[in-house]
Amino acid sequence: MRAEVLSVGTELLLGDIVNTNAARIGQALASIGIDCYMHTTVGDNEERIADAMAASLGRADALIVTGGLGPTQDDVTREAIARVTGRTLIRQADLEEQLRARFAEFGRPMPEVNARQADVPEGASIIEQDWGTAPGLIVQHAGGVIYAVPGVPAEMEDMLTRAVLPDLLRRAGEPTQIVSRIIRVAGVSESAIAEKVHDVWETLGGETTMAFLAGGGEVRVRLTAKAPDAAHAHELVAAAETSVRAALEAAVVGVDDETLEAVVGSLLLARGWTLGCAESLTGGSLGSRISSTPGASEYFRGSIVSYATDVKEDLLGVPGWVLEEHGPVSEPVARAMASGARARLKADVAVALTGVAGPSEQGRPVGTVVIAVAGPLGEVAREVRLPGDRNTIRTLAVSGGLNLVRLYLLEAT
Amino acid sequence: MRAEVLSVGTELLLGDIVNTNAARIGQALASIGIDCYMHTTVGDNEERIADAMAASLGRADALIVTGGLGPTQDDVTREAIARVTGRTLIRQADLEEQLRARFAEFGRPMPEVNARQADVPEGASIIEQDWGTAPGLIVQHAGGVIYAVPGVPAEMEDMLTRAVLPDLLRRAGEPTQIVSRIIRVAGVSESAIAEKVHDVWETLGGETTMAFLAGGGEVRVRLTAKAPDAAHAHELVAAAETSVRAALEAAVVGVDDETLEAVVGSLLLARGWTLGCAESLTGGSLGSRISSTPGASEYFRGSIVSYATDVKEDLLGVPGWVLEEHGPVSEPVARAMASGARARLKADVAVALTGVAGPSEQGRPVGTVVIAVAGPLGEVAREVRLPGDRNTIRTLAVSGGLNLVRLYLLEAT
Repeated sequence: MRAEVLSVGTELLLGDIVNTNAARIGQALASIGIDCYMHTTVGDNEERIADAMAASLGRADALIVTGGLGPTQDDVTREAIARVTGRTLIRQADLEEQLRARFAEFGRPMPEVNARQADVPEGASIIEQDWGTAPGLIVQHAGGVIYAVPGVPAEMEDMLTRAVLPDLLRRAGEPTQIVSRIIRVAGVSESAIAEKVHDVWETLGGETTMAFLAGGGEVRVRLTAKAPDAAHAHELVAAAETSVRAALEAAVVGVDDETLEAVVGSLLLARGWTLGCAESLTGGSLGSRISSTPGASEYFRGSIVSYATDVKEDLLGVPGWVLEEHGPVSEPVARAMASGARARLKADVAVALTGVAGPSEQGRPVGTVVIAVAGPLGEVAREVRLPGDRNTIRTLAVSGGLNLVRLYLLEAT
Repeated sequence: MRAEVLSVGTELLLGDIVNTNAARIGQALASIGIDCYMHTTVGDNEERIADAMAASLGRADALIVTGGLGPTQDDVTREAIARVTGRTLIRQADLEEQLRARFAEFGRPMPEVNARQADVPEGASIIEQDWGTAPGLIVQHAGGVIYAVPGVPAEMEDMLTRAVLPDLLRRAGEPTQIVSRIIRVAGVSESAIAEKVHDVWETLGGETTMAFLAGGGEVRVRLTAKAPDAAHAHELVAAAETSVRAALEAAVVGVDDETLEAVVGSLLLARGWTLGCAESLTGGSLGSRISSTPGASEYFRGSIVSYATDVKEDLLGVPGWVLEEHGPVSEPVARAMASGARARLKADVAVALTGVAGPSEQGRPVGTVVIAVAGPLGEVAREVRLPGDRNTIRTLAVSGGLNLVRLYLLEAT
């Protein structure tokens, strides 16, 4: 079984957006053991989309197409599929009714152009759309299959996992089983991790591989094992995980979707504690990330974003003389922000971030960040110097804050 | 003159890394007016690279290949070029000497495998490497040209701007000039915009095109004009922009890098006003986005993230009976949050967001969001129903909040 990926969109060719869909589909195909030897990108042009489809189907058994399913005149993936498979497009009355109902739900009349999204190549199956408006398509042709899904990443992801991958597996029969696990590590650099796990690397057999991916203040160590049966692949990954955990100890945050914010949430729930924040340079990003986890309302109280210095006094109770004497980016101010947030938000634990995101220095060099945590075990504070541009510094500061809370909570067992 | 982009690397097919090179080269080609109708990605396999090269050269006059020029056995772009052009690889003694000297500079002996990087297809030109180790190649073949540059983004970028683009322009003679502009629109759906600009679309000549890209609560309308000279292309885009602005009126946020948050910042600065926020479901994302603009400290006071309901009472002064009577996701509560934030943060204008991000309903259906703005002109509030998952709803709520502030500020001229 061989698959290819075709991305449709002039904005991809012009470089207005980066093609994350192709990468994501590549990962997904690899994870279920289906070979993919080529990704192609073409613009919103019916003839070129159809040509690319025909070429892909000449090389592969399955083609996953993203994009070009929208309602506007430049969305022509439906027409290209009809052309390459020699079918006619038929407007589906029930589908059109569904589209109108979806708009009615949001209290808006459906623009007539949207009715194009109910056009389906004769004999194709529909992948129902859960919350957007463009349905996906499954079209068999000449021994192969074309899947068409929307280009919006969240809608693509939904249809990929819900409909495309299961259908591919069904067609592929019994593929080689691939099991993969991501070990999330924080507070240690990629090269330090590579050194610490060097011995583990040496002992891995050819069936298990290890790869590193650094970004956003954490390093993800990806373990992948291949075996004829899933149970054996799982065993191989589990054995490698045990060795990596032994080598990295408390720097290991969790595996797979156990993000820093999710792990902090679990540790809080286990202790029955709540969390509050005080933020300056991050402007709310710390609270945003903590509350991105569903169910965060069980432990997250809120955040006081004191972007202006006098707000640190008014809303967090940082004494004016401390701000005066040490400056807003200092350990005493970070500690006062944390204990102020803890009191005002009535939280068991509070974490504070203050620093200089740039581009201009503010008394301290760009990248200087002070993190403080206050809670039942007392206070801790840490000053760091973070690299990168404004956006990177803010992202790394948030990860640093979350990691210090995590380590604080681990102490409180 | 038509060019294509071929990206080489199994890690791209597996989705271990996202193909930013293709986007960057796409931007660069558009900026010098060279058409690019296809991007292709293949793995580290000599035969498949050669096949993809042959196919591209059959469609286009120029092919830019990235990746596969490294020293290890899996780097086979050189071999694939030799195969597809029917040339032999010849090890260049002077190039090998240069490589050894580069290693000596860093006090290391050159691993013998690196000598492969001195292999050059007979008759090819070299693109000298400034600070890596893999030289680039320019190979003429059958009326076309192949450029091979490294896959490391910084090395690719260096060779692209220093050698590839100038060489392409030279071959193209006097190229067509392309000018493109993005018009950012908020508060209106993609299909409603398409309807409103339908007449504009009809009047555009063949030299100007229009494309839509929706995401994150805004729609970007891209206008692209082609003309023999840049001045004419600029005129065409300016004329199309005027028509689009006339059709969309206040829904137009700005052009190019004028994001919602940047435009809100400019409007605040023009009026000498400051901004504060009160957030619930967004957890800090609104403050985060406002403060992502450099220089935001001139107008951004901060945000009170009242994730827990009682924090709305304690820190924003929302009366308990209002919360009781109307529930936390309601217009009266959003209004009280906005005026509370305005007073407590000492801001001229404040914007409040309350709503249900899901996955569970909280008295109101998932996606219900109420936005309120309070300021010198009085209060406005708006209830909306947003589609999508938790993350999408939060993102759309932030854009909705920023857009209501923008419209409020536009009234205050």
